[in-house]
Amino acid sequence: MTKKLSILVSNDDGIFSDGLASLVNALTPIADVTVVAPDSQQSAVGHAITVHRPLRVREVKKDGRFFGYAVDGTPADCVKLAIRNLMKVKPDLVISGINHGSNTAISVIYSGTVSAATEGTILGIPSIAMSLTTFEPNADFSFAAKFARTMAERVITNGLPNGTVLNVNVPAVPESEIRGVVITRQGKSVWNDEFEARRDPGNKQYFWLKGELVELDEEEDIDQRAILNNKVSVTPIQFDLTDYPMLDRLRSWDLTV
Amino acid sequence: MTKKLSILVSNDDGIFSDGLASLVNALTPIADVTVVAPDSQQSAVGHAITVHRPLRVREVKKDGRFFGYAVDGTPADCVKLAIRNLMKVKPDLVISGINHGSNTAISVIYSGTVSAATEGTILGIPSIAMSLTTFEPNADFSFAAKFARTMAERVITNGLPNGTVLNVNVPAVPESEIRGVVITRQGKSVWNDEFEARRDPGNKQYFWLKGELVELDEEEDIDQRAILNNKVSVTPIQFDLTDYPMLDRLRSWDLTV
Repeated sequence: MTKKLSILVSNDDGIFSDGLASLVNALTPIADVTVVAPDSQQSAVGHAITVHRPLRVREVKKDGRFFGYAVDGTPADCVKLAIRNLMKVKPDLVISGINHGSNTAISVIYSGTVSAATEGTILGIPSIAMSLTTFEPNADFSFAAKFARTMAERVITNGLPNGTVLNVNVPAVPESEIRGVVITRQGKSVWNDEFEARRDPGNKQYFWLKGELVELDEEEDIDQRAILNNKVSVTPIQFDLTDYPMLDRLRSWDLTV
Repeated sequence: MTKKLSILVSNDDGIFSDGLASLVNALTPIADVTVVAPDSQQSAVGHAITVHRPLRVREVKKDGRFFGYAVDGTPADCVKLAIRNLMKVKPDLVISGINHGSNTAISVIYSGTVSAATEGTILGIPSIAMSLTTFEPNADFSFAAKFARTMAERVITNGLPNGTVLNVNVPAVPESEIRGVVITRQGKSVWNDEFEARRDPGNKQYFWLKGELVELDEEEDIDQRAILNNKVSVTPIQFDLTDYPMLDRLRSWDLTV
């Protein structure tokens, strides 16, 4: 009998989110699943880690049984703490999600979901970020969860190079309308965001961010475009941010001191 | 007479930090400087933005005169709010820092300092992140500030392509010991971090992150290595995280649905 897989699950929507529950349910038949997730909503935290205050960990039950660990920190904190301290043995895989909302184009760098997977990769564990591309409150995570299981199996079979994270975005349409899976590049679409200036009951001003992603990409192999075509988008991402083409140009600048 | 430069300054150490004050002093002779910075320490926040609550802005005075805007948000929030709402005209340049501590190797993805510069770039403004590589409480920012001014002038002269940020790390040694400037790649060094488990006065457990960067890079043109050689490190970075070599490998996986 082969050893059962060990999978660490985290997210940025918090330990009580529907997307995380669906993911755990889909993975339980194939793996021992350990849940370590933020105790509250952590969207758009980027790759934040908590260094100036300590973290607290609380055991969370569901239906009277132990479900997982809630941490008063960020997604990256959760994965770090899980792998460094809470789990006796390193997991075979880290899966983050299923996020309630897409993580495509420039949003990838703001994404707490992606940051949890990135932290897994930094710690040497093959890692996947899963997102369902809708903010609809009653979103149906079932196909995304099923596909997360498929991805987990493929990653175990094929392996992932050190430093590569898979960023998966699943269109929020019924499974019958899914038109396949496409390997994509991160798109260039950006947010046309702005701050709405408002007045509180005491007439003091405050600012609230609002906006939407502006579609700038036309090519079929772009994450955002795949979603619009009802295709599942799988983008391999990595964390050497060096702008290689700029190196030589910069060497021609006069920077003597 | 040529129009005076307009420079937006932000950071992650907060509006009252010494590194920011040094930067503002060094830039004031060449530019109209607008300061929009977090009202508190925001290290290691990554590219966090605040979406689930509003932001408050407070005008801060220094020596009885208006100094800048303090925002109860992240570095990226500050730059977004400055450019979208607080500044009447877009600045010519965004400079973030001077950070108290290095932002090299994998730390780049955790860095609030870098995220402020990144946000500037996303909004179409040439941007620079400046860090002084020491945690010494009484660090001397004077050479780093002088070099920030040089960088500002060079970026204005040479321009930067859309999407490129310059991540500058200055060794914390006297100017006479600086051995030049080197254009570098982001290193592969990682943190050997772990959480120290402690007990609070009520005997409840808490976890506090500690660790140090493990030097994994030997090449001379790596950010972290330049610093060890007492050279200023200038790394061009960008935000397309796509792992291009992996695209073809992934296309060979069976991902039919």
